[in-house]
Amino acid sequence: MGKQYDRMLTIQQEVSDINGALALMGWDQETYMPAKGASTRGRQLATLSGIAHERFTSTEMGSAIEEAGSEELTVDQQVNQRELAWTYSRSKRLPTALVKDLAETSSIAIQAWRDARENSDFPAFVPHVKKLLALQTQVAEAIGYAEEPYDALLEDYEPGTSTREIAETFEALRTPLVALVDRIRESGVSPRTDFLERSYPIEDQRKFGVMVTERMGFDYEAGRLDISAHPFCTHTGVHDVRMTTRYTPTLPTQSLFGIIHEAGHGLYEQGQDPSFEGLPRAQAVSLGIHESQSRMWENLVGRSRPFWNHFFPEIVKTFPEQLSDVSEEEFYAAINNVTPSLIRVEADEVTYNLHILLRFEIERGLFTGTFAVEDLPAVWNEKMQDYLGIAPDDNREGVLQDIHWSYGSFGYFPTYSLGNLYASQFFAKACADIPDLTDKISSGNLLPLREWLRTHIHDLGMTYRASDLVVQVTGEPLNADYFVSYLNEKFGALYGL
Amino acid sequence: MGKQYDRMLTIQQEVSDINGALALMGWDQETYMPAKGASTRGRQLATLSGIAHERFTSTEMGSAIEEAGSEELTVDQQVNQRELAWTYSRSKRLPTALVKDLAETSSIAIQAWRDARENSDFPAFVPHVKKLLALQTQVAEAIGYAEEPYDALLEDYEPGTSTREIAETFEALRTPLVALVDRIRESGVSPRTDFLERSYPIEDQRKFGVMVTERMGFDYEAGRLDISAHPFCTHTGVHDVRMTTRYTPTLPTQSLFGIIHEAGHGLYEQGQDPSFEGLPRAQAVSLGIHESQSRMWENLVGRSRPFWNHFFPEIVKTFPEQLSDVSEEEFYAAINNVTPSLIRVEADEVTYNLHILLRFEIERGLFTGTFAVEDLPAVWNEKMQDYLGIAPDDNREGVLQDIHWSYGSFGYFPTYSLGNLYASQFFAKACADIPDLTDKISSGNLLPLREWLRTHIHDLGMTYRASDLVVQVTGEPLNADYFVSYLNEKFGALYGL
Repeated sequence: MGKQYDRMLTIQQEVSDINGALALMGWDQETYMPAKGASTRGRQLATLSGIAHERFTSTEMGSAIEEAGSEELTVDQQVNQRELAWTYSRSKRLPTALVKDLAETSSIAIQAWRDARENSDFPAFVPHVKKLLALQTQVAEAIGYAEEPYDALLEDYEPGTSTREIAETFEALRTPLVALVDRIRESGVSPRTDFLERSYPIEDQRKFGVMVTERMGFDYEAGRLDISAHPFCTHTGVHDVRMTTRYTPTLPTQSLFGIIHEAGHGLYEQGQDPSFEGLPRAQAVSLGIHESQSRMWENLVGRSRPFWNHFFPEIVKTFPEQLSDVSEEEFYAAINNVTPSLIRVEADEVTYNLHILLRFEIERGLFTGTFAVEDLPAVWNEKMQDYLGIAPDDNREGVLQDIHWSYGSFGYFPTYSLGNLYASQFFAKACADIPDLTDKISSGNLLPLREWLRTHIHDLGMTYRASDLVVQVTGEPLNADYFVSYLNEKFGALYGL
Repeated sequence: MGKQYDRMLTIQQEVSDINGALALMGWDQETYMPAKGASTRGRQLATLSGIAHERFTSTEMGSAIEEAGSEELTVDQQVNQRELAWTYSRSKRLPTALVKDLAETSSIAIQAWRDARENSDFPAFVPHVKKLLALQTQVAEAIGYAEEPYDALLEDYEPGTSTREIAETFEALRTPLVALVDRIRESGVSPRTDFLERSYPIEDQRKFGVMVTERMGFDYEAGRLDISAHPFCTHTGVHDVRMTTRYTPTLPTQSLFGIIHEAGHGLYEQGQDPSFEGLPRAQAVSLGIHESQSRMWENLVGRSRPFWNHFFPEIVKTFPEQLSDVSEEEFYAAINNVTPSLIRVEADEVTYNLHILLRFEIERGLFTGTFAVEDLPAVWNEKMQDYLGIAPDDNREGVLQDIHWSYGSFGYFPTYSLGNLYASQFFAKACADIPDLTDKISSGNLLPLREWLRTHIHDLGMTYRASDLVVQVTGEPLNADYFVSYLNEKFGALYGL
């Protein structure tokens, strides 16, 4: 093992330990921290982030990474060196003043966004978006990009991808999706969903969710499930993966699919190779690949007919009164009900991606100058009408609904839909590799899929970039065909198209 | 404000933020961390402790502290400079190799102690105690001391005190305590305690404990109560104070007094001046003073007649069936039952201190060479017989019962009894300052005492060292008289002496 590689590892291990502490502090903030602890916690998070950044961007780390690149390294070590070099180089190109300006601007913008959304007052939010847009343009210029500034921002979440690639992929998605939504609307089919509004005791919802995720192979000796206002999954290490969800007294499927979704993320983290803990070799490839795991479990498995073949009798046993007059068929139709709606996070599998396409097109247009910030409400509503056939009455339910832009997080949204596409393409390959996979799911045996994902994706960490990984695993580059076929087949059957 | 003082503050703020993260990680480890997370957590704790230590002992910090000492400072600033200088100077005198050796030795000794206790095999533990004793002697030599090496170790927990002072104070305690225990034994009085063995639902135990601590003024918007194997209280900041307790289905008073005890610690932390958060001016004076807060609330308030005048009807309301045949008098006698017993943590108010005196005498004797490590079981059992009239059949219930020595924590035990003495002396003064204090407690109004403690102790942070604080608050140095009088009066009445 190289001497410089070792030096690099020592520093990275320290940075990773600090990041583990930061993850715990972030988790605690959303779950157990007493209300009055917020301001001190904010300062502690800033201090520790600063120390981690300082150590990682030190010239000592820079020279260790660079010199390790000339040492004789194993393939795994090369992965660590390559990815740390990539991150280091990006971090170093960002002037400290710009990073600080961004943090301060977004901290103010988040509050401004909350107020603007409350009052449905987009003009009040405009100057903040403009400033963040200007700062993120500076970021893009500092980091550099091949074709357009948005490329540089995308790579924060999906390293190795480009705006053009995503645009092409999404382009292939838009027409079939809009057509499918239209056909579903015109089908006149409308499943009953009344029983989802009944009262489902929260403790039973939790138990059912835990049981399902245990079947998925989530290890509760190396993880937890807690409650927070906004569900998330985080980890302080490979053996400490923490999911959260929220419960309402009705809508048991909301918490259930939330838990399954987070457990998909959780399995990815628990599946990393512990001998590389804290190193790129044991880290997720990208947000898109991460999202492919959560969405595969939530949608391709959790909302599938084989899954409910086994779990419907179990959920009826858990909620006998609430589901006494419901057939498996009705239940399956209800959890797959497609209705164009205004709010992204409430959208179904089909319409969801149109919400994302719209945001991607707007973000890209902002950076190319095609759209002015002031015009976003009009652009938003027009695209909503085009894609989903509906438009919001006010901006609260339209352009102001998501928090992402107030963080300056341009380039994040596309990863949600990339996740759906990756998920379908991976799942098709898993089905090909394991011919009786759906039979197994049908009998409640979810572990073969977990094993397949572990071998082909989880255990590899960042060995391959996302676009290479998909080729490596499925034999072809990412494309929208698998996802479109999946939707057409599933919803064609459900809506008698 | 001085420029160097500012520099000192900036570094200390950073150290304190790391310490806040460490406190959270420690709390989480005992409460919510999944089992398999332990080894990574251990490494993260070590890394962050190392960073905090490195920053605090940097030459930059050293020169800032030193030069701040020549600047014109307010009284509060002087407190910060004085205490940081004291801690800095102690830290710098310890060779890094020695600190590391101690950490490694104690980490092995803790496991050895667990095994030795399990097997009641003291000889197996002997080499570890010897090594820790040798290392702590080196620590004492490195730090320096006035009269005997044990002085230097004591000051880790009780800054500004000395072995001789404590020995004199404890000397005044031993004879009256042993006499009181004898008289109680000879009294023939034996309160009924059968009802404490009944079944008390844990959720009701928790609710009752929370209710009582709310009455004490513990702010649950700035704190929490959770469950852990060994009760403790920690804080990540003035507004984030976390207590734990443990519950058994019987013995509701065990959890209740545990919660009241930890809330006494918690009120001390919540009562610090938030404008000095992270600085000595908003930190506890010493372990002894900290323990005075927990023991005052647990014993002088929580086990007092006035307290139960108000709370007995409330506990009967909470547990009507379990306490239906119990009078207030019987309940009060049961929770104050005095019985010489082998285990320190299960001891009553009277015998508890004899357990401590014994440990103090043994620790001191180890460092002066009066006792050899090999002889400790014999010394232990002889002293137990002398002080409490009983001796253990095996070392598990004797010399091996406590974890402290395996950590190398010699000098910690005395602070428990110092806490009892401080508590009585402070409480006597509070009663003098607030003439109707017991009437108020009698009517369930605990806030006047909390306010008195806040004003006279909590809010002062480290303004005074413990020995000065007690003079400042009560007008006289620490002495055993208040505690002895308190015990004689209370238990004289209870046992008809």
